[in-house]
Amino acid sequence: MRIIDQTLLPTEYREIDLVEVGDVVEAIRSLRVRGAPAIGIAGSMGVVASLKPHVGSSPAEFRSRLAEAAARIRAARPTAANLAWAVDRVAAVAARMEDARVADLWQALEQEAKAIHEEDREMCRRIGEHGLTLLRDGSTMLTHCNTGALATGGIGTALAPVYLAAERGMKVRVLATETRPLLQGSRLTAWELSRAGVDVTVLTDNAAAAAMSRLGVDLVMVGADRIVANGDVANKIGTYGLAIAARHHGIPFYVAAPSSTFDFTRASGAAIPIEERDVDEVRRGFGRQIAPDGVGVFSAAFDVTPAALVSGFVTERGILRPDELTALQV
Amino acid sequence: MRIIDQTLLPTEYREIDLVEVGDVVEAIRSLRVRGAPAIGIAGSMGVVASLKPHVGSSPAEFRSRLAEAAARIRAARPTAANLAWAVDRVAAVAARMEDARVADLWQALEQEAKAIHEEDREMCRRIGEHGLTLLRDGSTMLTHCNTGALATGGIGTALAPVYLAAERGMKVRVLATETRPLLQGSRLTAWELSRAGVDVTVLTDNAAAAAMSRLGVDLVMVGADRIVANGDVANKIGTYGLAIAARHHGIPFYVAAPSSTFDFTRASGAAIPIEERDVDEVRRGFGRQIAPDGVGVFSAAFDVTPAALVSGFVTERGILRPDELTALQV
Repeated sequence: MRIIDQTLLPTEYREIDLVEVGDVVEAIRSLRVRGAPAIGIAGSMGVVASLKPHVGSSPAEFRSRLAEAAARIRAARPTAANLAWAVDRVAAVAARMEDARVADLWQALEQEAKAIHEEDREMCRRIGEHGLTLLRDGSTMLTHCNTGALATGGIGTALAPVYLAAERGMKVRVLATETRPLLQGSRLTAWELSRAGVDVTVLTDNAAAAAMSRLGVDLVMVGADRIVANGDVANKIGTYGLAIAARHHGIPFYVAAPSSTFDFTRASGAAIPIEERDVDEVRRGFGRQIAPDGVGVFSAAFDVTPAALVSGFVTERGILRPDELTALQV
Repeated sequence: MRIIDQTLLPTEYREIDLVEVGDVVEAIRSLRVRGAPAIGIAGSMGVVASLKPHVGSSPAEFRSRLAEAAARIRAARPTAANLAWAVDRVAAVAARMEDARVADLWQALEQEAKAIHEEDREMCRRIGEHGLTLLRDGSTMLTHCNTGALATGGIGTALAPVYLAAERGMKVRVLATETRPLLQGSRLTAWELSRAGVDVTVLTDNAAAAAMSRLGVDLVMVGADRIVANGDVANKIGTYGLAIAARHHGIPFYVAAPSSTFDFTRASGAAIPIEERDVDEVRRGFGRQIAPDGVGVFSAAFDVTPAALVSGFVTERGILRPDELTALQV
């Protein structure tokens, strides 16, 4: 499996190969590949790729390796729903093929992982089509983190409508919050949108409220790592503050995500596991020490936006209000 | 005049001497000295220091150099009210001493600059005393940017109550937003408070709303660069978003500032000049390129928080509501 090492952007474009389970786990943990849908795809592909050298093994050994790979990769990041969903989906194929030969089983797993990728590409396009109805020629959309081609198997989630608008000659201006600590907005969103010819302006996270007040923001659209039954949304740290500021300014706030991001097994945001990452991502940002040793660091990688602040969920099946989400449960 | 070069903190402590007007302007523009009260002090001291080699000049030449130094230093940064206020105060001494000998005039100017410094030290302490009434043992205060000893001639504005609490053995926990783009919170606030033994936790700016929801914030207190007649507040970019988030969580939001920060000549925040700084402060954070060339950057250094979001102004004369500010005008 080959991925773009996203930690090197925007100054270096490098593709790397992932072979072993350990490579896949490391790439997901260190955010060489990131974005909820993309880590779902990378996780399922990673399970399959890591099993390729073991196609000659006994069925028992192959299944044992599959179980181990699935468990390790599934646990690489806890907050995004898509990773567990995609790995479980590949593992479920094996469970359904009890008496299969190993070679057939591996091929079926590979087919499933490819299907996940292909379906994601299609879901992105549908999310884009639905989201496009929220944009007009001349709209200004504020977004957070990166939810584009780099985050998915297709044209993204919250950025999908922007790509479709550009395809169709509409002018849409994107304000991209830089998204500390790892700067996915300034490094990745600005990079991929400017390559696509989209008018994109980077701002520090703390400038978002001023931008809403001064720059004429028409809507905020973000992605999601997990959306639970009541419509609460776990997403990149900073999403919650943007939702509050959008509400204060009367600006609609949309969450774009495929249905694999919805987790109906959890009732509310309080039940979502929130990943705390290495404090040095904050303390030694930009390769330089920016906070003294010995001080505390609050390093939650995600926050939870209550459903009450969400104007709508842009999914591949249409735009839903928080109280309409049960339609996705079937 | 000797200052701490604050651009090198927290990893290097270095004092530098400012001799010429150009040194003072450069130090203020590049934020080697920053913080509204501190640049007022540095600006007035800078005028005086730059005139020292000219004490042997004719009165006309001395006054012409004074006018030039005052104009250049006054214009070094446009948003902070204190800089113009302090420089004008020194210049006014010369206007009152029409027939003075140059040596006497220089001494009077020096005395005025020292008085500004001394008064600031005293104002900080009074702000601290008033602000301390808002803290309890065990309080958690969220703050932004740096408003402590490094930003003033004394123990700070918004951090003054924290220093007094520490002096008196009260435990106060401070959450310091890192304050992109120049990270005055993580570099300076965390540095000076941890040196003073205060429990301080750094967070990315975009984590403030999550901190309010999860960490039990009792109050937000920030400084100000300019407060106008109706109570609107210009302060470091990000202040406005914090005020909105505090209101959303029902957390009181205080602005601590000496009366030299109040500008009754401007009716509302719309009339405040907002400094836009070099976009490379955002694009090339800390020597590393973090956003691609060619994309737009929104680089306002300040935002305006409407008076309606301010619970109170903590001044050297007491805590005032926005509708009580005229008391400071006398």
